[in-house]
Amino acid sequence: MIVQIDKQLSTPEIQKTIHKIKNLGYSVTEVTTQKAHYCVCHGKGEVDIRFIGSLSGVKDVHVVSDSYKLVSRKWKVATSQIDLGDNIVIGNGNCSIVAGPCAIENEEQVASIVNHLVENNIKIMRGGVFKPRSSPYTFRGMGIEGLKMFYRICQQHGIRIITEVMEIDQIEKMYEYVDIFQVGARNSQNFNLLNVLGKVDKPVLLKRGISGTIDELLHSAEYIFSSGNEKLMLCERGIRTFENAYRNTFDINAIPLLKEKTHLPVIADPSHGVGIREFVPVIALAAIVAGADGLIYEVHENPEEAVSDSNQTLNFAESKSLLKKVAAHTSAMQNSTYS
Amino acid sequence: MIVQIDKQLSTPEIQKTIHKIKNLGYSVTEVTTQKAHYCVCHGKGEVDIRFIGSLSGVKDVHVVSDSYKLVSRKWKVATSQIDLGDNIVIGNGNCSIVAGPCAIENEEQVASIVNHLVENNIKIMRGGVFKPRSSPYTFRGMGIEGLKMFYRICQQHGIRIITEVMEIDQIEKMYEYVDIFQVGARNSQNFNLLNVLGKVDKPVLLKRGISGTIDELLHSAEYIFSSGNEKLMLCERGIRTFENAYRNTFDINAIPLLKEKTHLPVIADPSHGVGIREFVPVIALAAIVAGADGLIYEVHENPEEAVSDSNQTLNFAESKSLLKKVAAHTSAMQNSTYS
Amino acid sequence: MIVQIDKQLSTPEIQKTIHKIKNLGYSVTEVTTQKAHYCVCHGKGEVDIRFIGSLSGVKDVHVVSDSYKLVSRKWKVATSQIDLGDNIVIGNGNCSIVAGPCAIENEEQVASIVNHLVENNIKIMRGGVFKPRSSPYTFRGMGIEGLKMFYRICQQHGIRIITEVMEIDQIEKMYEYVDIFQVGARNSQNFNLLNVLGKVDKPVLLKRGISGTIDELLHSAEYIFSSGNEKLMLCERGIRTFENAYRNTFDINAIPLLKEKTHLPVIADPSHGVGIREFVPVIALAAIVAGADGLIYEVHENPEEAVSDSNQTLNFAESKSLLKKVAAHTSAMQNSTYS
Amino acid sequence: MIVQIDKQLSTPEIQKTIHKIKNLGYSVTEVTTQKAHYCVCHGKGEVDIRFIGSLSGVKDVHVVSDSYKLVSRKWKVATSQIDLGDNIVIGNGNCSIVAGPCAIENEEQVASIVNHLVENNIKIMRGGVFKPRSSPYTFRGMGIEGLKMFYRICQQHGIRIITEVMEIDQIEKMYEYVDIFQVGARNSQNFNLLNVLGKVDKPVLLKRGISGTIDELLHSAEYIFSSGNEKLMLCERGIRTFENAYRNTFDINAIPLLKEKTHLPVIADPSHGVGIREFVPVIALAAIVAGADGLIYEVHENPEEAVSDSNQTLNFAESKSLLKKVAAHTSAMQNSTYS
Repeated sequence: MIVQIDKQLSTPEIQKTIHKIKNLGYSVTEVTTQKAHYCVCHGKGEVDIRFIGSLSGVKDVHVVSDSYKLVSRKWKVATSQIDLGDNIVIGNGNCSIVAGPCAIENEEQVASIVNHLVENNIKIMRGGVFKPRSSPYTFRGMGIEGLKMFYRICQQHGIRIITEVMEIDQIEKMYEYVDIFQVGARNSQNFNLLNVLGKVDKPVLLKRGISGTIDELLHSAEYIFSSGNEKLMLCERGIRTFENAYRNTFDINAIPLLKEKTHLPVIADPSHGVGIREFVPVIALAAIVAGADGLIYEVHENPEEAVSDSNQTLNFAESKSLLKKVAAHTSAMQNSTYS
Repeated sequence: MIVQIDKQLSTPEIQKTIHKIKNLGYSVTEVTTQKAHYCVCHGKGEVDIRFIGSLSGVKDVHVVSDSYKLVSRKWKVATSQIDLGDNIVIGNGNCSIVAGPCAIENEEQVASIVNHLVENNIKIMRGGVFKPRSSPYTFRGMGIEGLKMFYRICQQHGIRIITEVMEIDQIEKMYEYVDIFQVGARNSQNFNLLNVLGKVDKPVLLKRGISGTIDELLHSAEYIFSSGNEKLMLCERGIRTFENAYRNTFDINAIPLLKEKTHLPVIADPSHGVGIREFVPVIALAAIVAGADGLIYEVHENPEEAVSDSNQTLNFAESKSLLKKVAAHTSAMQNSTYS
Repeated sequence: MIVQIDKQLSTPEIQKTIHKIKNLGYSVTEVTTQKAHYCVCHGKGEVDIRFIGSLSGVKDVHVVSDSYKLVSRKWKVATSQIDLGDNIVIGNGNCSIVAGPCAIENEEQVASIVNHLVENNIKIMRGGVFKPRSSPYTFRGMGIEGLKMFYRICQQHGIRIITEVMEIDQIEKMYEYVDIFQVGARNSQNFNLLNVLGKVDKPVLLKRGISGTIDELLHSAEYIFSSGNEKLMLCERGIRTFENAYRNTFDINAIPLLKEKTHLPVIADPSHGVGIREFVPVIALAAIVAGADGLIYEVHENPEEAVSDSNQTLNFAESKSLLKKVAAHTSAMQNSTYS
Repeated sequence: MIVQIDKQLSTPEIQKTIHKIKNLGYSVTEVTTQKAHYCVCHGKGEVDIRFIGSLSGVKDVHVVSDSYKLVSRKWKVATSQIDLGDNIVIGNGNCSIVAGPCAIENEEQVASIVNHLVENNIKIMRGGVFKPRSSPYTFRGMGIEGLKMFYRICQQHGIRIITEVMEIDQIEKMYEYVDIFQVGARNSQNFNLLNVLGKVDKPVLLKRGISGTIDELLHSAEYIFSSGNEKLMLCERGIRTFENAYRNTFDINAIPLLKEKTHLPVIADPSHGVGIREFVPVIALAAIVAGADGLIYEVHENPEEAVSDSNQTLNFAESKSLLKKVAAHTSAMQNSTYS
């Protein structure tokens, strides 16, 4: 059960209301987000919602049968929107596009990709400066100085930045230069990191674990939300299966299931989802048709020369062609006879 | 290496040519299909293709580096077409639709579904009469008598029939009443069954195994083709993974990969691929957008009352709505600016 | 519910008893095996077992909550024993050893391995004559003539034969020369084959599917048993997972779980279970310690020259060493203080 | 290639030697551990090892073809030993036992388990105070105060402590009270945490990821080792597969493979590996027989009342019985005829 409390209510009044809920046999977790104040209540007893609704300061009450609560669509029916300013909104029914290199490499690279984004009206750029790599002997990213350079160039063109955070310590250093913090697949159940990101006033994109279940993904999202951050979106990026003909197996089923289970926007990552460059566009389109709110894909002026993920990175012509196809399908889906 | 031999050539002449190929260090498997006569040659030695091309009766020669040969797109670049007569063709660039119940239940059921198919211009009907079931104590299908009834009703409306064959013994009994033999996921590596289906002059739809790799699927297809049957198509129907939020995990990646690897048509089964009725349509659309040559899905007048698979079977309204959406996306894809 | 009926009872009397059970709301499947006559009853109604026990000809009654019935240990508490004559018994508490080559190749090969078996007091020999192979272009076994030769040599030394049957047609041809029919992993859900093997009066070893669940394996076994064959044993041979450092992942957990769920003997196949020769012995020992009733492993005089599975086949010295270790651990387990 | 450098060598001398190695076309990573100073060299060029061996300060040189280097057994042939003082050594050929509750709950619980350990001569106790939990609404452990209490009681009896660290911040706070830092399955690729643990002078037990490959586990270990910590051991704790009859699938194959690939001790966790209490002992024994250097399992006075993992926790009698069986099998393995 989720009980929304009036933010204006005084602390003693809030405690009085919570006390009454607890008396009904519930345990209560208080959650204060950027937008509201909630009590997440767990308990088995039957309860008359009208009684709770009548308590001082209670704005609304929802029973949520899922074990995750605040991210459940049983509570919030409309998809949550994430507003990045300047009419850049994720989750508003249009297909949001995020593109950029696997890793930030140097100024020329960033500038050329920013140019591609501007030309194609893409508003959000991806690019890693802290790279999780299986081996300690490989390039681990340009770090905070790379991020500052990345930010400087993007800012000149109004491009928003999403980049991966690997460690609590990095959050504060990165904060000024980041529009969306990305949690990578390997940190999908790094609960300490999730907790602290819940206290940050910037949007978070949470990737599904390498073999994370849908249920685990939603509970990880609940960590962030229940720590105070509503600006949250999820990302399907392929799972690990027995099949090794591709890097990962893009789980297309996850798209409609997540859209049913949660009000959070769902972004598809076809680059990691299949890992083979020539197939990235059709997997992207499939995800859109299946209901994804947006795409995050890898693009580079010369994919063959990218320092990482060159096998799954589109060049500019491929990226441009993909966007035309996305438009064709979204246009088909917005037609009035499509229902 | 695949060497196509003139079908008119006399047997002694053929043997002479084969002898010369063997002398080059190749082992040779002779394959006679409905359409042509091939020599599939395995060997490591380098060879001058022009020499083989100059041998008596040789029509053409292709080097195929895959370990499957006759189903490889390295040999045949164009997608193979399967002609069922009356302009019903699979693999010709249009989206072929196959719909019908999980199991054939009775005349009324078949008649009502046939009626739905006719109304929606669907030309091929699925429906099982031999049902592979995990438990010996559940309904295993109406058998050959059910098939005859199924055939009688379909024939009146020019509807083609696809139905599963589980056992070599059944082939002859089913032959007259079947347009396409379906090999189910559990028989995907039943090599004896594949071998005999290779000698049958009716098309075969081969489903991917429950956790079959792409490579295994192509080799199973090679069994059928190399036994003599070119009228062959493949079906992606979801794989078994750690995720149990759905019946299977539809492997969308398999669609473009199979389309690249083989010239055989690739059909998507979204019903088994996700196993949840409300998600079947978007998975179907995703598969089409990813390049599938057609769909096979389950439909029933009252899915809730179907004897099997009721959770993944569309009703008539859902089926009709799906077809409209398929048309919207295929139309978008056929637009000249889509490339 | 399983109701055992006196085999001496006349058919009309049996039908009268079954009629009374059906009247209680049960559906009844009659099963006649080599040993007994059973009624497998499905239904939800509560029933007074004493009433059924009082019916004419009823020998005993057991409620079995599993959806498989006749293979459940809830019905039969003691492990079933499979008697191959001459005191060769599987499932009697000792560790049964089956060894032999992947494929029967020629007389010399068989003779040398038989000699190894005789020297090491191994009573059952494996060896494939019909080989399921992913590619149609590879060696598929010596066939029935190979089996006859295999039989001739084994018979001279009292060695029992287990070999794979791939197809219903082969059963009759193989019958005379086979002591145990093996169903391979790819045929684990070939229900037609299982059904016919249920009507054969020879033991069957049923392998788990390549990614078959425990539940599916038990239901496949129920197919055989409920068709009439009680002489049945199961085989864990590794499953398909994301890990490709080995051929398969031997599922050690399956051993104690199967031993709890079913009264059928459980045999471990460490050769396929890990697929790497040097690790085969420790996986074999692990399986024994975990409760397996026996081992089936591959052995060859010169594994490097075996036509198939050479990477997972022990040589004679390795086989002999393994047997000594098996003896050491089984002896430790039979000590009175081990409990 | 791993080049060990004399720790006494002056910095300028070291740099001179490294410079010469780089001139041969190698990139060099310097590693200083508790025990030694190494240069890990990557490069493709062939090299005369004798030349490198002749460089100033070089103690030895090993070519290691694996992409992980310092944890490879190709470099160090003997199993590394981890000495916890008072003759408590892991990796010395005996089976090390670690037992304790899933979570530290209170003084009485710790005291009763410590008593069980003392009675059974177990020297190392597990017990979580920071608990990774899928849901934010469940018990996350007693935290640092719980650890202090845990430490106080263990210290009185000479019991060593292993407990999970989830976050870099916790390391310093925990340091004084911990003998072995455990990295949990969800943090197996938390590279920042691994890096910092590499700079700590306490042993680390690194668990395999939930669906981590053997290769990923070894590379994660390389992170810790190459940051400076040689006191490292690995833990197989079951993997995620399609089978959901158990919590995880214990990967018995991993034991001999890891023992071949790395010189680090390999510990088995049968509690998580199967997750079903009655099967924990046989999985433990299987792991020992397969070559594990030790066990870590969950024990509690009243498993049914444990706050977490009660389904997989042994009671004292079961624990005692397991130890007797471990002794029986290790004794069998140490017999001179066992080889």
